[in-house]
Amino acid sequence: MQNTRDKNYTEWYQEVISGADMAENSPVRGCMVIKPWGYGIWERIKTILDRRIQETGHENCYFPLFIPLSFFVKEAKHVEGFAKEMALVTHSRVRIDGTEVKLEGELEEPLVVRPTSETIIADSFSRWIKSYRDLPVLVNQWANVVRMEMRPRMFLRTTEFLWQEGHTAHATAAEALAEAKTMFDVYVELATGPMAMPVVTGEKIETERFPGAVATYTFEAMMQDGKALQAGTSHFLGQSFAKAADIKFQNKEGGLEHVYTTSWGVSTRLIGALIMTHSDDDGLRLPPAIAPSQIVIVPILKDEKDTAAVMAFCEKLKSLLIGKVALGEGLRVKIDTRDRKSQDKRWDWIKKGAPLVVEIGPRDMEKGEVCVVNRMNIKEKQFLKLESFAEGAADQLETMQKDLYAQALSYRDKNTRTDIKDFAEFKAYFGKKADFLPKGGAGFVRAYWCGDPESLKVLDEMAVTVRCIPFEQNPKPGICVLTGKAATQEVIFGRSY
Amino acid sequence: MQNTRDKNYTEWYQEVISGADMAENSPVRGCMVIKPWGYGIWERIKTILDRRIQETGHENCYFPLFIPLSFFVKEAKHVEGFAKEMALVTHSRVRIDGTEVKLEGELEEPLVVRPTSETIIADSFSRWIKSYRDLPVLVNQWANVVRMEMRPRMFLRTTEFLWQEGHTAHATAAEALAEAKTMFDVYVELATGPMAMPVVTGEKIETERFPGAVATYTFEAMMQDGKALQAGTSHFLGQSFAKAADIKFQNKEGGLEHVYTTSWGVSTRLIGALIMTHSDDDGLRLPPAIAPSQIVIVPILKDEKDTAAVMAFCEKLKSLLIGKVALGEGLRVKIDTRDRKSQDKRWDWIKKGAPLVVEIGPRDMEKGEVCVVNRMNIKEKQFLKLESFAEGAADQLETMQKDLYAQALSYRDKNTRTDIKDFAEFKAYFGKKADFLPKGGAGFVRAYWCGDPESLKVLDEMAVTVRCIPFEQNPKPGICVLTGKAATQEVIFGRSY
Repeated sequence: MQNTRDKNYTEWYQEVISGADMAENSPVRGCMVIKPWGYGIWERIKTILDRRIQETGHENCYFPLFIPLSFFVKEAKHVEGFAKEMALVTHSRVRIDGTEVKLEGELEEPLVVRPTSETIIADSFSRWIKSYRDLPVLVNQWANVVRMEMRPRMFLRTTEFLWQEGHTAHATAAEALAEAKTMFDVYVELATGPMAMPVVTGEKIETERFPGAVATYTFEAMMQDGKALQAGTSHFLGQSFAKAADIKFQNKEGGLEHVYTTSWGVSTRLIGALIMTHSDDDGLRLPPAIAPSQIVIVPILKDEKDTAAVMAFCEKLKSLLIGKVALGEGLRVKIDTRDRKSQDKRWDWIKKGAPLVVEIGPRDMEKGEVCVVNRMNIKEKQFLKLESFAEGAADQLETMQKDLYAQALSYRDKNTRTDIKDFAEFKAYFGKKADFLPKGGAGFVRAYWCGDPESLKVLDEMAVTVRCIPFEQNPKPGICVLTGKAATQEVIFGRSY
Repeated sequence: MQNTRDKNYTEWYQEVISGADMAENSPVRGCMVIKPWGYGIWERIKTILDRRIQETGHENCYFPLFIPLSFFVKEAKHVEGFAKEMALVTHSRVRIDGTEVKLEGELEEPLVVRPTSETIIADSFSRWIKSYRDLPVLVNQWANVVRMEMRPRMFLRTTEFLWQEGHTAHATAAEALAEAKTMFDVYVELATGPMAMPVVTGEKIETERFPGAVATYTFEAMMQDGKALQAGTSHFLGQSFAKAADIKFQNKEGGLEHVYTTSWGVSTRLIGALIMTHSDDDGLRLPPAIAPSQIVIVPILKDEKDTAAVMAFCEKLKSLLIGKVALGEGLRVKIDTRDRKSQDKRWDWIKKGAPLVVEIGPRDMEKGEVCVVNRMNIKEKQFLKLESFAEGAADQLETMQKDLYAQALSYRDKNTRTDIKDFAEFKAYFGKKADFLPKGGAGFVRAYWCGDPESLKVLDEMAVTVRCIPFEQNPKPGICVLTGKAATQEVIFGRSY
């Protein structure tokens, strides 16, 4: 790659994406085209998460893309939160008159292309829910959403993105809170398990909550430039949306009450998080649990007379591998038959982050051997007997899964300061301008904070925010790192995406 | 149900949908909410079809929801075809000023919410394709699309619908044509296999082609009111989109050529087809291959003292069934634990078209028996020993799958006239106004047609169209049923959705 993390982190990120052929910018500002390898990663995330969403009792359904503008206006904080990034449909046809194209069929009410679906789902809930017997309602949808983005970055901030959004309604606040936490735990499982991505879990402070929420749970991951990435959130919405849409149920005693709702979502942003957690200066590295292909076999075909035999040898290896299990699933194996130089192919797969790349040429075949490159150490070529590679492949993948997590965890812990005691030290730490952390930039600071929103103003010029109030707290009180006042809670400070 | 097919076919259709709790109208005109049972059917179709799309060498990816209006204008016929049903995004934010809501941030160019993606995908292809080595490009996306619909009907015509759209590019016309046919065959396999829906396959006449296509292959199914439903299409696009977007490749000889493209899609409309092919006056009937749950176990719980034992008996049955295979897949079994009367539950599942509903009460349990209702004959209750039901369940499902197809095929064949020889007979047949076929309405007519587009004008007042030119043709020439002129091809005439 032309750019390393060290040289230009932002360019490096773009280059990892283009090198791995995951996505490209589209002619529509802020919208991207997700190419097969990028989409394959999303499908892996989807498959894993969807299974857990079902297992926890939710059913998939589908709500309209368009939401009447008046629905948003019903919940004041909600509309305020999304007003500046709404795509609005106003017309329903065009007329072509020579070279002129005119918009016609102006709609009576503008339609918002959903930025999130609380309001339209609440409208359905108000029809579905009559009695306590109808509760809880537990639904989820996999959908595209649109938030007009002024400073787009592929996967991280795009005008259109793909996500799932879960929406539930409950008879009691306690049950809704428990739901919001359960689904949060499911996300954390996905992040720390298959995605091999360590996260800090906690609650958002009031000013950082989802517009309309009573509590927002978040998990934040550290990127390699030290910045925090909010990877997913789960919200306890209290009765705000229930009141705005009048979702009432008859309780067991015959009285009428508003329900309590939750919503929770993760998006294609997770792919951005994955890239910036694991990739190195050679390109993407993918945790084996997420890689669409875990083992890629590259036949080396120089001479036509060898082609059939080499291909048969590759197929033999594939059939030995298929049916073996790593990380609880059958191995995913691909033979790259493209009409390209084998060296180019090997590099393609290294840049794509395929965990194991296996090259097989006529000479290897004669020796009954294969040449394996493990993405954790691409400088070493392993020459192994076909059978012995096939026997050990699952182990290599499982080790890689653990090692990627361990590397990321050690990086984050090394770059989380817990020893900063006052604002002078705090400012000295975050005052540095360096983008890339190893060059002297900043990571996370975990410190006491007094909870006064006013005290956060000093953070603006440093572009620092409170990422979350971690669930795991020190039971002892302390001194606020910003104000020097007494404080009872520790928070995570950091720059963010 | 209140309405039978006979009494009011249109209302019956709506009632099947609401009775099965598949979907509901949303507050946005023409958009529906797809509820869990309806969405579960879509997920079944998706799973089955997606596997075949992959097996035939295609990769999934994702293209933007928004397409610049200018992209459409590039292909004259294409824009003409979609101009009257385009949702146009013109603004990017709102400002709330007291009670007034103002649209702001007018876009430089309006964005079309994709009605189909040929133009934006062609734009990507023009970047991806440089040489013959890059061909073929074989991609597919699962997405939502929007076509503003003035006369919406759930699943059949909705402003937003879900579909897959495949798009491919090839070096030669022959290869592109073969691709369009291959994917067409995949669709026909889906329709006639898992969906148990007989179809007529053929080519669209010129005036009925997809806007911009050189050839459109279609499969048409007969609904129970005798109308034809175009269930899916596959298009050979020639070089029209390649020329509009300038998709060129260097051929083996070093010359530059435009590629040949195809596109093909099926949508949630298939669910409408499924409903109107199989349902009866008691509600939905689902082919077992498509049913999200094939066997639903309803515990009859009248007395709390029996609850644990009855539930254990239900679980025992479920575990006996899980792992058994019907139609090439493991059985899908659900226990309905909702807090409802068991009779209401049984009827719910009959209306939902669950293939087998099994009721188990304390008395059945004591006898080691279950009470089974097969959706093909709900008047008969089968009392079977638990084990013997479990042994035979897969057979019942496989038989039902065949019987549903056979019933639909016999209905269609009975209502396809091949004996109509001249226009007087033709007019007498289609002149009838009755909506529902068994009451004397019209079905299909297969007859010779001379091919002159002018001759079709007489069909307008009968609301009849040429549905397709069937692939299977009579080698002998004949006499055009409309004009009496010599004709070389037979076509299918019918009313359509």
